[in-house]
Amino acid sequence: MREDALLEWLRSRSPLLGDDAAKIRLAGDFACTVDTQEEGTHFRPGTGPAVLARRLLAVNLSDLAASGARPALAFLALAAPPNFGHRAFFTALRAAARRHGLVLAGGDLGRSDRVRAALFLVGRRPAGARWLSRGKGRAGDGLWVGGPLGLSAAGRLSLARPLGGATVHAARRAHLEPKPQLELGLWLGRQPRAAAIDVSDGLALDLHRLCRRSRVGARLDGEALPRPRGFAGLCSRLGVDPLELQLGGGEDYVLLFALPPSAEPPRRFGCTRVGVLTGGRRVLLRSGNASRPLPAAGWDHFGSASGAS
Amino acid sequence: MREDALLEWLRSRSPLLGDDAAKIRLAGDFACTVDTQEEGTHFRPGTGPAVLARRLLAVNLSDLAASGARPALAFLALAAPPNFGHRAFFTALRAAARRHGLVLAGGDLGRSDRVRAALFLVGRRPAGARWLSRGKGRAGDGLWVGGPLGLSAAGRLSLARPLGGATVHAARRAHLEPKPQLELGLWLGRQPRAAAIDVSDGLALDLHRLCRRSRVGARLDGEALPRPRGFAGLCSRLGVDPLELQLGGGEDYVLLFALPPSAEPPRRFGCTRVGVLTGGRRVLLRSGNASRPLPAAGWDHFGSASGAS
Repeated sequence: MREDALLEWLRSRSPLLGDDAAKIRLAGDFACTVDTQEEGTHFRPGTGPAVLARRLLAVNLSDLAASGARPALAFLALAAPPNFGHRAFFTALRAAARRHGLVLAGGDLGRSDRVRAALFLVGRRPAGARWLSRGKGRAGDGLWVGGPLGLSAAGRLSLARPLGGATVHAARRAHLEPKPQLELGLWLGRQPRAAAIDVSDGLALDLHRLCRRSRVGARLDGEALPRPRGFAGLCSRLGVDPLELQLGGGEDYVLLFALPPSAEPPRRFGCTRVGVLTGGRRVLLRSGNASRPLPAAGWDHFGSASGAS
Repeated sequence: MREDALLEWLRSRSPLLGDDAAKIRLAGDFACTVDTQEEGTHFRPGTGPAVLARRLLAVNLSDLAASGARPALAFLALAAPPNFGHRAFFTALRAAARRHGLVLAGGDLGRSDRVRAALFLVGRRPAGARWLSRGKGRAGDGLWVGGPLGLSAAGRLSLARPLGGATVHAARRAHLEPKPQLELGLWLGRQPRAAAIDVSDGLALDLHRLCRRSRVGARLDGEALPRPRGFAGLCSRLGVDPLELQLGGGEDYVLLFALPPSAEPPRRFGCTRVGVLTGGRRVLLRSGNASRPLPAAGWDHFGSASGAS
């Protein structure tokens, strides 16, 4: 499909989308974020274009969730081989965008030997809300996660194996099409104070990032980390340690957040309290009665790191 | 250089840049554009990181010029091999951005086997100005270009050959570091009506695009196209036809624009009148006393297209 013909097709479906720069009137406070998905790095070759579109959007929306922003505008830079399923991609992207109140307002199409998509999102701060950031945590705050951890990583590992069953299916879905926690982010933005980050590179690494920006330490309770049903069994089939996968697997796209000690998110969000922010700067993992330093590392580094400690 | 360390280094130099989404207050009318530069497609492997940064910025600023926007904010998605010169790239990008009043407000860094950069720009419509677009031309308008055509393409072709001399040097500079015509775009935005496009894919293709969106035809005077000094001689050394390179070479990043018949840009911009918009939808090239249809094609298609006509 030639680029001009594809653009005509897109323009007939997206009023703002044109060859010219998108012209937009804006008034208010906005959060802007950009994130990239690349074939071979972020998703396996052969991933369907519709799945890829939804994943690209979800991963980027998760950044807006961690800001407490309401999705507004999207701009896409897509490079793909000529035989890529552009129509399936854009049909899925527009449908998913619409579900989140997001308008695809502009973009750039190019050719490449691999699929690469950079998505730029603009979100709006709701009236009366505050921005969330990594830097707003204080010693004594409760530390929370917005959902289960490790399932996405287990799903990623399972893709290369001939496994089946409901847990495998759920894990693969968690990996391929994560659910950005936008409503939770909006709720956090209405609280007097909240620090938040979305868990993309793994709980351990992202907790270190939150602590560094907030200039605090943390004590994480390894046994409190929420595990979905069947997770331990799946890890056993995959030959990986469940806790290590939860700490370092990444791509969970749930929110990791800190709230003042007395605050608690509504039960409908399914959040779990997993620790506390502390004075000093040490980030500790409590497991049973023992505490040890939690390395700022992803899952692929955990084996050697825990072996050396 | 690890991504977190690079981000720390960047953050110490760009106050808005952080791990979190950039939080920005905006009020007014904005033009948003995104464009990509990829190693092997838009620039040769081995292009220096500083040259690449300036080229990336220039190509994208040219889209803002064609909108009549004043540069405001930039967001970058950069994927590069580990040995890429990140510091040289960002130092050059920030210096060039500052010269244009542009703030690097956010970004995403990743690894890739080739350098790929998507730049998202936000420009502001100046008070009292109008947006430019491709669709504002009317039959009878004068058709203008903002500078010489073909030089950048000659420069691109010359890179593969052991050529020297002042014209070759100028052509290579025109190719590697084009000058976006922002001041001209701002002047056009203060006129009662102006259509504009920046010549990225070649004069012929971009003229067709302007005509299609404006629902007009055009008569282009091939002999009026401005040629820099030494251009014909350089084309002869390269073994290419000067007119074909001017019509289809592309990457000129000068503005192609239409103004009401009596309007004329100030001489300081060095613009040249190259034709007229016409009723009907035919796009014709006049050369000597003859007129022939101008194909909507880039330079690589011209040989066969003119041979077949």
